[in-house]
Amino acid sequence: MILKDSAGLRDRYNGGVSLLVVGSVAYDGVETPFGKVERMLGGACTYISLAASFFTDVSIVGVVGDDFAQEDVDLLTSRGIDISGLERVPGKTFFWQGVYSADMNDRTTLRTDLNVFADFDPKLPPSLQEKPFLLVGNIQPALQRSVLAQMKRPKLVGGDTMNLWISDFRDELLATLREWDFLLINDSEARMLSGESNLKKAAAKILDLGPSTLVIKRGEYGAVLFTRDGHFWAPAYLLERVLDPTGAGDCFAGGFTGYLASQGIGAADFGHARQELRRAVIYGSVMGSFCCENFGVERFRSLKRDEIDARFQELKAAAEF
Amino acid sequence: MILKDSAGLRDRYNGGVSLLVVGSVAYDGVETPFGKVERMLGGACTYISLAASFFTDVSIVGVVGDDFAQEDVDLLTSRGIDISGLERVPGKTFFWQGVYSADMNDRTTLRTDLNVFADFDPKLPPSLQEKPFLLVGNIQPALQRSVLAQMKRPKLVGGDTMNLWISDFRDELLATLREWDFLLINDSEARMLSGESNLKKAAAKILDLGPSTLVIKRGEYGAVLFTRDGHFWAPAYLLERVLDPTGAGDCFAGGFTGYLASQGIGAADFGHARQELRRAVIYGSVMGSFCCENFGVERFRSLKRDEIDARFQELKAAAEF
Repeated sequence: MILKDSAGLRDRYNGGVSLLVVGSVAYDGVETPFGKVERMLGGACTYISLAASFFTDVSIVGVVGDDFAQEDVDLLTSRGIDISGLERVPGKTFFWQGVYSADMNDRTTLRTDLNVFADFDPKLPPSLQEKPFLLVGNIQPALQRSVLAQMKRPKLVGGDTMNLWISDFRDELLATLREWDFLLINDSEARMLSGESNLKKAAAKILDLGPSTLVIKRGEYGAVLFTRDGHFWAPAYLLERVLDPTGAGDCFAGGFTGYLASQGIGAADFGHARQELRRAVIYGSVMGSFCCENFGVERFRSLKRDEIDARFQELKAAAEF
Repeated sequence: MILKDSAGLRDRYNGGVSLLVVGSVAYDGVETPFGKVERMLGGACTYISLAASFFTDVSIVGVVGDDFAQEDVDLLTSRGIDISGLERVPGKTFFWQGVYSADMNDRTTLRTDLNVFADFDPKLPPSLQEKPFLLVGNIQPALQRSVLAQMKRPKLVGGDTMNLWISDFRDELLATLREWDFLLINDSEARMLSGESNLKKAAAKILDLGPSTLVIKRGEYGAVLFTRDGHFWAPAYLLERVLDPTGAGDCFAGGFTGYLASQGIGAADFGHARQELRRAVIYGSVMGSFCCENFGVERFRSLKRDEIDARFQELKAAAEF
């Protein structure tokens, strides 16, 4: 665990519990109505771990090529992220390029070069197999399952998926979900996974697949948390300007899981930690909002924990009645 | 004022304040994935007044043809709605026919026969000119303005509009809005009216047009209330089955304004009635949800005030953190 002994980092530790994040580390090329960046740090694992690092200890498992820049390593380690599980192999780092529509509700992928990520088969070093919290980014479901198989009885396990795995790798995905405590997906994915257009019915069907907790992310419309005994309607933070929404869903996942890890709340606690689960969703929403304020991971270079908590309070004030 | 002296109606009076609703009374033909109704009672004025009648005294001003059925008159009066301002003229009642898409997020108009509504030029009987609360449904903005001109210093004035008036009758609409205390529109209308795709910026621009209060309705995503000092994020009630969304926005308006009228809260009170304004939005959301549970106005035949309040409490429980 690489940890800088700076006062600026200390405040993010709250109990010293530790989260393992597995997923893609990438370079992205992104164009939005507000600008264009040819190449910048991206990938689900990157966004998740940066967002979670404001709440708890984070370790990552991923793969990069020999083009992965030292400054990007430095950004991760500057946030106290343990990169001992970040493998560097010959070849190029995963590259994705996309362009957003004028209203930023749609995006078109222009290029996907899997590069070294094509052979990603996560192998967890022994030191990471005992981490109590596990968040698996959106990778092939069989790989997601193999990650969990390497872990020693984590307290909380969950992750993300996407339309490709739902449609073309359904059996593998269902096997993965049976072992997860929570799933974070967007509403079109929830409808696709369940075959139900009604959100409430879709959620009920997904909860029958395994996870006891489901967070349906709806972008600018907020999110809804579903558990077997009810749901929670979480507001989105209304931004005046969204520069780049790339990674917002991953940062949501990082805030959600990072907060739960910081409070030591595992799946066994969910039954009596209703308020904490709700707060976790709000922290997810907050981290997603910060992500959108600048291109890529830029906003996390300057973000402070008190800004996060201030935004949490703003959401509370906006939702009370 | 026609008022049946039944115990079932008494509980909706709370202070005896009185709301005037002006707008269309119509027959609708509607097809949704759950069924098809060739002809049923509809129109903004109808939906608004029925929803508001669960909170306060309601009078309506509208026009129908000689085909308007006694059973539809009876439904309105059974809810204590004063129909002294409902004009009956030779000809046919406004008829609208539409079909909803499979996910019910879009609808296609198949037929619009304005009939007697084409010459609607609301004339308020003297007894209605002193009503303290006024809600104007979605009609031509110059007519909306003429309604207010006939009123004697109402405490609260607001209404609805639509894309046609925003694009083709902009100057008339802006003149109308300058005189209103509140505006209730959906998010695409808010973006169109303001020329801003960002919701927060759109709201700020609309508040500069006159109304001190703006409610942006977002259907299944809830609603956001904007005032000059902040916003309120209101949940939607998650239904397991939406049979027919026709009129839901009007019922929202009826619940919102009906509740404010029931509490005697006029525009002058808005500054210190923040909680009441928020509750009004929730009652709007609740009434919209009941509307969707059956075709047309069917749900309002059996609805009871305690069902409304129970749903209000459910929304409160779903939004707390």
